[in-house]
Amino acid sequence: MFVAVFPEHHSTLLELKPSLAGKTLVDVSNGLRINHDGPSNAEQLADMFPDSDVVKGFNTISAWALQRGPRDASRQIFLCSNSSKAKSSVMQLCRRMGFVPVDMGLLSSSLEIENLPLSLFPSWRIPILCTLFLFILFYLYNFLRDVLQPYVTAGKSVFYKMPIETVNVTLPSVALVMLALVYLPGLCAAFFQLWSGTKYNRFPNWLDRWLTCRKQFGLCSFLCAALHAIYSLSLPMRKSTRFKLLLAVRQMKEGDEVWVEEEVWRMELYVSAGIMALGLLSLLAVTSLPSVANSVNWREFTFIQSTVGYCALSMATVHTLLFGWGRAFDPAQYHFLLPPTFVLVLVLPCVALLGRLALCVPCVALRLQQIRRGWEKTRHLRFRLPEDNCRNTLDDVSNV
Amino acid sequence: MFVAVFPEHHSTLLELKPSLAGKTLVDVSNGLRINHDGPSNAEQLADMFPDSDVVKGFNTISAWALQRGPRDASRQIFLCSNSSKAKSSVMQLCRRMGFVPVDMGLLSSSLEIENLPLSLFPSWRIPILCTLFLFILFYLYNFLRDVLQPYVTAGKSVFYKMPIETVNVTLPSVALVMLALVYLPGLCAAFFQLWSGTKYNRFPNWLDRWLTCRKQFGLCSFLCAALHAIYSLSLPMRKSTRFKLLLAVRQMKEGDEVWVEEEVWRMELYVSAGIMALGLLSLLAVTSLPSVANSVNWREFTFIQSTVGYCALSMATVHTLLFGWGRAFDPAQYHFLLPPTFVLVLVLPCVALLGRLALCVPCVALRLQQIRRGWEKTRHLRFRLPEDNCRNTLDDVSNV
Amino acid sequence: MFVAVFPEHHSTLLELKPSLAGKTLVDVSNGLRINHDGPSNAEQLADMFPDSDVVKGFNTISAWALQRGPRDASRQIFLCSNSSKAKSSVMQLCRRMGFVPVDMGLLSSSLEIENLPLSLFPSWRIPILCTLFLFILFYLYNFLRDVLQPYVTAGKSVFYKMPIETVNVTLPSVALVMLALVYLPGLCAAFFQLWSGTKYNRFPNWLDRWLTCRKQFGLCSFLCAALHAIYSLSLPMRKSTRFKLLLAVRQMKEGDEVWVEEEVWRMELYVSAGIMALGLLSLLAVTSLPSVANSVNWREFTFIQSTVGYCALSMATVHTLLFGWGRAFDPAQYHFLLPPTFVLVLVLPCVALLGRLALCVPCVALRLQQIRRGWEKTRHLRFRLPEDNCRNTLDDVSNV
Repeated sequence: MFVAVFPEHHSTLLELKPSLAGKTLVDVSNGLRINHDGPSNAEQLADMFPDSDVVKGFNTISAWALQRGPRDASRQIFLCSNSSKAKSSVMQLCRRMGFVPVDMGLLSSSLEIENLPLSLFPSWRIPILCTLFLFILFYLYNFLRDVLQPYVTAGKSVFYKMPIETVNVTLPSVALVMLALVYLPGLCAAFFQLWSGTKYNRFPNWLDRWLTCRKQFGLCSFLCAALHAIYSLSLPMRKSTRFKLLLAVRQMKEGDEVWVEEEVWRMELYVSAGIMALGLLSLLAVTSLPSVANSVNWREFTFIQSTVGYCALSMATVHTLLFGWGRAFDPAQYHFLLPPTFVLVLVLPCVALLGRLALCVPCVALRLQQIRRGWEKTRHLRFRLPEDNCRNTLDDVSNV
Repeated sequence: MFVAVFPEHHSTLLELKPSLAGKTLVDVSNGLRINHDGPSNAEQLADMFPDSDVVKGFNTISAWALQRGPRDASRQIFLCSNSSKAKSSVMQLCRRMGFVPVDMGLLSSSLEIENLPLSLFPSWRIPILCTLFLFILFYLYNFLRDVLQPYVTAGKSVFYKMPIETVNVTLPSVALVMLALVYLPGLCAAFFQLWSGTKYNRFPNWLDRWLTCRKQFGLCSFLCAALHAIYSLSLPMRKSTRFKLLLAVRQMKEGDEVWVEEEVWRMELYVSAGIMALGLLSLLAVTSLPSVANSVNWREFTFIQSTVGYCALSMATVHTLLFGWGRAFDPAQYHFLLPPTFVLVLVLPCVALLGRLALCVPCVALRLQQIRRGWEKTRHLRFRLPEDNCRNTLDDVSNV
Repeated sequence: MFVAVFPEHHSTLLELKPSLAGKTLVDVSNGLRINHDGPSNAEQLADMFPDSDVVKGFNTISAWALQRGPRDASRQIFLCSNSSKAKSSVMQLCRRMGFVPVDMGLLSSSLEIENLPLSLFPSWRIPILCTLFLFILFYLYNFLRDVLQPYVTAGKSVFYKMPIETVNVTLPSVALVMLALVYLPGLCAAFFQLWSGTKYNRFPNWLDRWLTCRKQFGLCSFLCAALHAIYSLSLPMRKSTRFKLLLAVRQMKEGDEVWVEEEVWRMELYVSAGIMALGLLSLLAVTSLPSVANSVNWREFTFIQSTVGYCALSMATVHTLLFGWGRAFDPAQYHFLLPPTFVLVLVLPCVALLGRLALCVPCVALRLQQIRRGWEKTRHLRFRLPEDNCRNTLDDVSNV
């Protein structure tokens, strides 16, 4: 029998108790809010009907999918029960309906199953808020420098830059800062271990949380970088480019030097570096797809996320440095005394790259390796996790 | 023993019957055409050899993969049997060969397993045909308006527009119409429920089928939109753009006004809206990958497919409206009295967006919510699916 | 108890033997290098503690993930044991920790599980080396023809072409040659079967290895093609394009013919063919994602990889042929007597396409079909794999 009643109303079923003995009860109910403490609805039901076999499941599937068969959303049905016979008969039922049953073990997993359908991207909240905050910040800054400043000081109206050009300066700034934020927590963790001289001190809470949402930070960065690429590629097809070119032709005089070798080199180099950075970031993004991540082993995953990742960060930094190319020291670029955006943006990536370099200095690297193999400054031998003997955990934190 | 004989020739095995008793028979045969009625080959075999343990499997794998080990195609081997002992020993065999055995339960699933390798994208047929039909229709229409009309009326030969420019007007039209077709069936379903005053009436058959291939419609729309983006970005690199610019320079006279503020704003705005629509569509497309869809819960899936989806549809509609920008009312645009393509294209998306807005009007939204919680106009209390108590199924049909 | 000790030190555990009897031992150790011969660490442990239930597992997960719960990398824990009771209790433990246990069967699978975390993209090594080799080769060739030749012969310095334009001629060359290398081994296999007159001769070793890394060749080709697309789209936004245009305007004289119809047609056609080839390649790339490949059956996979694949190859060849458009026969293009790159690049794809056409000639196709159904030239009836009866294995080798 399927039970979809709130725990408060379980007592209404009590009169059926004798006839339910020995039968299988499937609890399909959901909580109204996330329940961390338990007991789960299914456990309450099992307490009330000790003679029935309670199976938890089907709560993660929409009612429509149950009626009409599986749809495009997840086909997995998470099941758990203390009776393996009842569970396997419900699993067979799932398969007949076209779903994929996933065995979650004993009924003690039911709390987790009940909480599953209630969350809405919990691990994405901070990265998305961070992206939005940075976007708004940089957009306002660029608006002030590139649009408002010419209007206020010279009366030149360039408000047409707002939908594309200002966005296109903002997006790469967000992308580069977010990419640096992916690699900074690992460096923090490494320096924290060097400072405390042991790997057995827990990281502070903020660092632990930061370490766990690096993937989301990275994907937000990739999204901004990809949009930046499309915006940049769309620049020459705009009417404004055409009109500016016609104006340039009209104002061109006979003796003018048209070809500026330095400008040409700067642009060729930074465009090329940017495309390569985007290519590397795409590789990282593809590897973070669940099915691809499941098909590579831990060593390959570390190689891609760490080695390829630092290559992408370096390439993106080179892209920005080449874009700057001496303009950082040109006072004419400091409208309203505000430095150009790329100067601000380069701070965090440079810190991350220098930090990584510092960890490569032989004596630092050696000490870190010792610490990660279990060595402690205080020489006080504590309990060691057994796997430390077998695997160099150097890459665990700082490299991934 | 492995059996790969057509059911007609099963009798040739009968003489082996005594020696096969108690052994495991693996039926690897496939049908020649899809069999809906049964019995499956494996069931026929089991009837003939009641003393053997019949296991169905390996029929979904190519003979080459069986000889040389798993390849890039699916590594899953679907198995079913009434004997769990025989099944688990075949599963162990699969694992040794490097495949991933998938337990499909009892031998009654064998019909489904036998039909698996015979279908060729059944759910894609209608969406692809629909895309092709719309493409040809819009291509001919655009060819008539943009290429043939200037040739017939003014003798101007612009046939060079056929490979890129005409395709690039056709692709976004197809993309937008297909995107509207993703969201219309959900609205139809909602209005059908409002009209019939209950959620327990079955939808008409065409609506049910339409609802089940929305994902495929969406992905076809995304493909067209992405190709449209690449075609658009390739416009300025063509020789024809360069030649046109040189012609414009030659014909430019001293007093001409070169900078047309309205044109500039129109283009900046619609390009920006288009890029954002493409970004949102990419998010939708990534979420429809099976491994990503499996890793989000039902609430998250609904949020992305419904909220983000309607954002993408609105953004694409805004992109097209800005592209139009007053030209819809310019009689010069009506070659041969045919309206510009974007006017025709906007009909369905506007219907979809207005329909969605209508469902947000408080009294309509409330009634719909009541209906989806089980309320009926006829006040006739029928059997309710149990899960209705626990979940607001508002989103089941209209939002997904 | 968890055991993470090297096999050499297993003896240190011997004194615990009496107290471990009947307990579950989980061997989490890894080897230091890939071990093909066995016995595995877990098997050595099981030999030493015959009274304990040895379970192999957890060795593929990083120590940090074990401490803090699953992270973005693979959540799968591969387990094997001869005791199903011990295995299922460890599986339940895995699920409580948030991991996904994968049952690998008996302890004889432990050698495979121990080798899992030690490999670093073994199937990617040859394709990546091949891509790099071709890239360097073509880059040097193009550098010689396009940059060095004008400098040496005419003193014209066009070194600015190195970061973008030379790369952008090199990338499509690599992409097209790699794509041809995807389809050549299948043709070789078909001709080998025609020549030897049977399907039961083993392919030579190099062919077998080549056949198994076609997917990786294809993905490398797609990466190059995608980068080529972005590089090409970025061409018109460079300063050098702008400067060249201004120079062209200055040198333009009154009577000059600006519009060259043939140039316009050539460019429109090859750009359009190139975009379509990229679209088809993207479909192939998406289908090779593990989760998508698992959700299509073998017939659908063959259709995409073979039919769509040959369409992509043909389209890419047409793209290159249109790009050439008569220039192959223009002696002015043969700097230093070196033919233009596209002439060299077209050799392999044309061989592949002609070979495929040859296999479509009725008498050849018929013979091949006979061979693949088991017919042999020598009329010597050997052992047949049973599934040959049931499936036309025509597509096994040449089409996939």
